[in-house]
Amino acid sequence: MKRLRKKHPAVRDLGEFGLIRELRGIVGSSGNSVVVGIGDDCAVLRGDNPHKYLLYTCDPVVEGIHYRPTDPPRKVGWKTMARNLSDIAAMGGVPRWAVVSIGLRRGTDVRWVKQLYAGLQAAAKAFGCQIVGGDTTRVRHEQFVVVALVGEVERSRITLRGGAKVGDSILVTGTLGGSLRGKHLSFTPRICEARWLVAHFPVHAMIDLSDGLSSDLHRMAEASPRGIGFEIHAAEIPISRAARGNLSAALHDGEDFELLFTLDPRHVTALRQKWARRFRTELTEIGRVVNSKHKVALIQRDGSRQPLTASGYDHFAAS
Amino acid sequence: MKRLRKKHPAVRDLGEFGLIRELRGIVGSSGNSVVVGIGDDCAVLRGDNPHKYLLYTCDPVVEGIHYRPTDPPRKVGWKTMARNLSDIAAMGGVPRWAVVSIGLRRGTDVRWVKQLYAGLQAAAKAFGCQIVGGDTTRVRHEQFVVVALVGEVERSRITLRGGAKVGDSILVTGTLGGSLRGKHLSFTPRICEARWLVAHFPVHAMIDLSDGLSSDLHRMAEASPRGIGFEIHAAEIPISRAARGNLSAALHDGEDFELLFTLDPRHVTALRQKWARRFRTELTEIGRVVNSKHKVALIQRDGSRQPLTASGYDHFAAS
Repeated sequence: MKRLRKKHPAVRDLGEFGLIRELRGIVGSSGNSVVVGIGDDCAVLRGDNPHKYLLYTCDPVVEGIHYRPTDPPRKVGWKTMARNLSDIAAMGGVPRWAVVSIGLRRGTDVRWVKQLYAGLQAAAKAFGCQIVGGDTTRVRHEQFVVVALVGEVERSRITLRGGAKVGDSILVTGTLGGSLRGKHLSFTPRICEARWLVAHFPVHAMIDLSDGLSSDLHRMAEASPRGIGFEIHAAEIPISRAARGNLSAALHDGEDFELLFTLDPRHVTALRQKWARRFRTELTEIGRVVNSKHKVALIQRDGSRQPLTASGYDHFAAS
Repeated sequence: MKRLRKKHPAVRDLGEFGLIRELRGIVGSSGNSVVVGIGDDCAVLRGDNPHKYLLYTCDPVVEGIHYRPTDPPRKVGWKTMARNLSDIAAMGGVPRWAVVSIGLRRGTDVRWVKQLYAGLQAAAKAFGCQIVGGDTTRVRHEQFVVVALVGEVERSRITLRGGAKVGDSILVTGTLGGSLRGKHLSFTPRICEARWLVAHFPVHAMIDLSDGLSSDLHRMAEASPRGIGFEIHAAEIPISRAARGNLSAALHDGEDFELLFTLDPRHVTALRQKWARRFRTELTEIGRVVNSKHKVALIQRDGSRQPLTASGYDHFAAS
């Protein structure tokens, strides 16, 4: 728990979740065209097609926070676009159009900017998305890149965070932890896997892992009906090679950008078989959705059960 | 003219226009759903409604560049949203949905952020736009706010930059220059005026004045067919009170956010009469679209004619 030392709290006192809760209050209830506003991976909007929803998301990437000044600009571009694509994947959607805002120092080499753009463009193109506009501005200190992305999804296939049902299996794609060793700059957004999933199986809830498994499980729990808990098994968590056997890294490291989803356990066997024929990406059942007053719990290898706190990455709390 | 002193140019050497030209080359030709990509006030997209286009734009605002740290945060929020609304106005459209990315220092007072959001929300709400999502991140130095905005416009009413015809009258709303004395933080985006205009008159070309009349006339000229020139009269330029009679300020200052448009001169009398009954905002005919090898020319009060160079605000060239 962070203590509020001042009468007027600063951003660091509220943290990212707390701040978003405050801002949601200002924006207020959304109108008729807005199915889901602030609080899921994307906003969900009613456009003119009665069979589809529009998806809308944005994500900023800042020098010194999300990448180092020495990281290859092509990878920085890829990462920035891929983070947004991952949000579209989490809703079961396809990306359509992106706009890009870039803050640049005056002395930045034009080659750096062109390579950044080549990376943005490569990630967009790989998943059928088009960069259709953008704007640049000058900054004095740290550079930034913001992508906003519009996608779409069939109304019958959309996957929200809050749809988990008691009894559901909890599954995760890929392996977790240690993303900072390299994966965070070159990961593959799970668009193809998500599209296949929502086309073939009745997925109840889905989110992409951006802030760490523990944090994102809490986000899913908070979006779920009251009394629903998520129970995962330490022995089942797929730990990435980069995390070197460190369970804590797999539970709490951010920027995995894998999919976390729930569905009725009777589908799991068929899903696993078909998945293995279709993808090389791992798919692991890590737990169950339960009736519980604890939102997220971890079952240790010895069978003991303990609440799992959200200790993933928080920009503002991180020192 | 800026000289390229290094083998590999920096952002400052190309300037904002040059940089955008370079990046446009990387993004390449746009697909079937993209009517206009990079290079107008908004991207123009074919959605599912055969009678409408989607409009899509984004615009970054940076502390120390677009506002001072001491400026009231509510005004900073208003300005950020209004800049984007102005881009939608320039296409004759209505704004629908916005997403917001904010970069914040850890020590920023939460009240500052809430007031910023209140300003964003006030501007959005005033013009029927909804803030549907967003993301925050930490920065170490200058804070930033990026808004991305989706709007729509009837296909029959869209106004692009490049549609001017020889013989057209050139008109401008409001008064120009001196925006930095205050208007830049509290201006009214010309959504209502633009919507009325495109509903009642066949506007050929339109742009919003973001970088200064001279620069934005050059943007319009560059988007127009070859051989088309824009001739404006010094005596007709509506100079704002804040510019204190300074023609140069009215020609070159940025952030006026007024509308510049062209239409057949036979409509001008009717337009003026109806406009005066409908709006308090000034409307001034400032010149003509002509056959000319000079893209933009200024007719002085003594009748002499000289090329008008684009010397509006350029983030990267500005020292």
